[in-house]
Amino acid sequence: MRLDDISTPGRLADPDEGITGHELALAARNHGMPLEAMRYDLTPPGLHYLLIHYDIPYLDGETWRLTVGGSVRRPRALTLAALQGMPQRTVRVTMECAGNGRARLEPRPISQPWLVEAVGTAEWTGVPLRHVLAAAQVDAAAEEVVFTGADHGVERGVEQDFQRSLPLAEACEDEVLLAYAMNGAPLAPQHGYPVRLIAPGWYGMAHVKWLVRIDVVTEPFTGFQQAVAYRLRQEADEPGAPITRIAPRALVIPPGFPDFMSRARIVPPGRVLLEGRAWSGGSPVAGVEVSVDAGRSWTAADLDPPDGHRWAWRRWRLDWTATPGSYVLTARATDAHGDIQPTEQVWNRGGFSNNAAQQIPVTCLTG
Amino acid sequence: MRLDDISTPGRLADPDEGITGHELALAARNHGMPLEAMRYDLTPPGLHYLLIHYDIPYLDGETWRLTVGGSVRRPRALTLAALQGMPQRTVRVTMECAGNGRARLEPRPISQPWLVEAVGTAEWTGVPLRHVLAAAQVDAAAEEVVFTGADHGVERGVEQDFQRSLPLAEACEDEVLLAYAMNGAPLAPQHGYPVRLIAPGWYGMAHVKWLVRIDVVTEPFTGFQQAVAYRLRQEADEPGAPITRIAPRALVIPPGFPDFMSRARIVPPGRVLLEGRAWSGGSPVAGVEVSVDAGRSWTAADLDPPDGHRWAWRRWRLDWTATPGSYVLTARATDAHGDIQPTEQVWNRGGFSNNAAQQIPVTCLTG
Repeated sequence: MRLDDISTPGRLADPDEGITGHELALAARNHGMPLEAMRYDLTPPGLHYLLIHYDIPYLDGETWRLTVGGSVRRPRALTLAALQGMPQRTVRVTMECAGNGRARLEPRPISQPWLVEAVGTAEWTGVPLRHVLAAAQVDAAAEEVVFTGADHGVERGVEQDFQRSLPLAEACEDEVLLAYAMNGAPLAPQHGYPVRLIAPGWYGMAHVKWLVRIDVVTEPFTGFQQAVAYRLRQEADEPGAPITRIAPRALVIPPGFPDFMSRARIVPPGRVLLEGRAWSGGSPVAGVEVSVDAGRSWTAADLDPPDGHRWAWRRWRLDWTATPGSYVLTARATDAHGDIQPTEQVWNRGGFSNNAAQQIPVTCLTG
Repeated sequence: MRLDDISTPGRLADPDEGITGHELALAARNHGMPLEAMRYDLTPPGLHYLLIHYDIPYLDGETWRLTVGGSVRRPRALTLAALQGMPQRTVRVTMECAGNGRARLEPRPISQPWLVEAVGTAEWTGVPLRHVLAAAQVDAAAEEVVFTGADHGVERGVEQDFQRSLPLAEACEDEVLLAYAMNGAPLAPQHGYPVRLIAPGWYGMAHVKWLVRIDVVTEPFTGFQQAVAYRLRQEADEPGAPITRIAPRALVIPPGFPDFMSRARIVPPGRVLLEGRAWSGGSPVAGVEVSVDAGRSWTAADLDPPDGHRWAWRRWRLDWTATPGSYVLTARATDAHGDIQPTEQVWNRGGFSNNAAQQIPVTCLTG
């Protein structure tokens, strides 16, 4: 037996292959946000989405140290108390998994099988990373910053600690944090206790949890999660483009009430408030449109004005008068650059950066 | 269109039918406890399992009222403040979903597709229900107490608020609580804010969340979740036996580190501490045995002595010396009545009360 026998290459589902036991085991661990939680500006603890590649590591905040090294003149090992004594900042961030929507693709990439719910919003408090880098005195030749988490596992034959990098300029943005609090409380174990990276606007894989090491490097980082996973590819053997910032997306709070098993929705006739949230990690959201006929016709929704939380979702609303019949609700966001959510997904082999508009079957029954 | 067209009867999966999209949608909402969280006596917020039949309702603690009525002489409507002013009690409870293990059955009942992780332990604080019933002056003819939650949906064609009953004698046990706090904090929305029932030792369906009404009745309750769902049946048309208390179960914290996709485990050669938890809702756990050969041979584990928390899981440990090769780890609990976990599941049509021993494939690789 070798690692390669246990940890096999990525693959696509066969035509008509149902969700596999391995996908189900990931779905049972890594939970999505029930969409009705979009009623809250900040996702209540326990409802924020979670994607954990390996196991949740157990770290003791008393003995934990964050090593800062690589191409710096003053390497150091920081305690939690030292980090908490530095200038702090709180940023409200909507975070989304880069694989959100993967399980709706055809053929389906076999991995964490998200539908649309891998999202959540929290207020993260921590030290802007640039202060820590400044204290370490980064070399002039520095190009990227590599973040190492304490979570350890094997993936497609490669044994690893979870590692990702950011370009130095992105890492020095004032809102990139070494965060030690979420919604005003210490991080929960599953959200990276004691300290995680927060990189507002980026998909979740960039926000490295359970940080133990920061290395400044002078060449682009080529670790597994940077150069092998999290790439946009059509073919398995192409290098692919890196996954970076969150594409625009709007989601609807499913109206009415559900059937237990199918989650299909039932609404009474009359006025139905359609509402939800919209976000984007690049250019800000500029508008949201709603359709009740699966995207054949669209109506502009009322989008809340910007409230100073650039990296958080914004609420939108639209009144709908339901009459008996069958509907497919959907919503799409447009960003300030004119990028708009597609109604059908553009396929890629890893199932990343999907932002095809959600579809919610709704039946309006006579009272 | 009628409700019956949208909300269809229960069914079993066809032979070789993969997990369906409907099952996946439930798995994405209703999350299990990552098994490594068994290291904690109390499951950290957000890691406790969750099963929500319909949507999480939004209740305002200020305007919320709990109606107590039916066969009582003094019906009342209690505020949250009133409940919090009554005698309080805190009970540590391991809660498990009655459907835990369902997705491993063959044929597989199509419903929430749990593997083994639908469990968690919390300290619940609230008013013993018996105080509230005493103040309402229950009639002598009373037989059961019916609990109504605010969660509304349709299930197999029946539109309903979630409702369950307890026999009056069980409802008057001192540890049955109207709980308003979990691990010392107000209930999270998904755990039943502002008040839920806690019935220690019972499967999760009895612990009605988002309580809005309590009715004392003089006949056995025949609502959907009591007489139709949550019954042990071999055939769809038999009445079946009610699901009540949690069968004995032990689970292992998967040792070593995982492969991302298969969750298969890899351990280095040498000493490996095998540990986990064991619980039972009827007779207390009396012993735990561990096997590394899929149940062909068993070794008694060290079970922590009783610590006064009768309704909570107990830790067990066993040292194992791993040598290169392939193993299937499993553990089984025995209760004080001699009931022991089976290695193969006894099938029932709803997939309830499963307690077949967990199986964890582990590979020990040469260093």
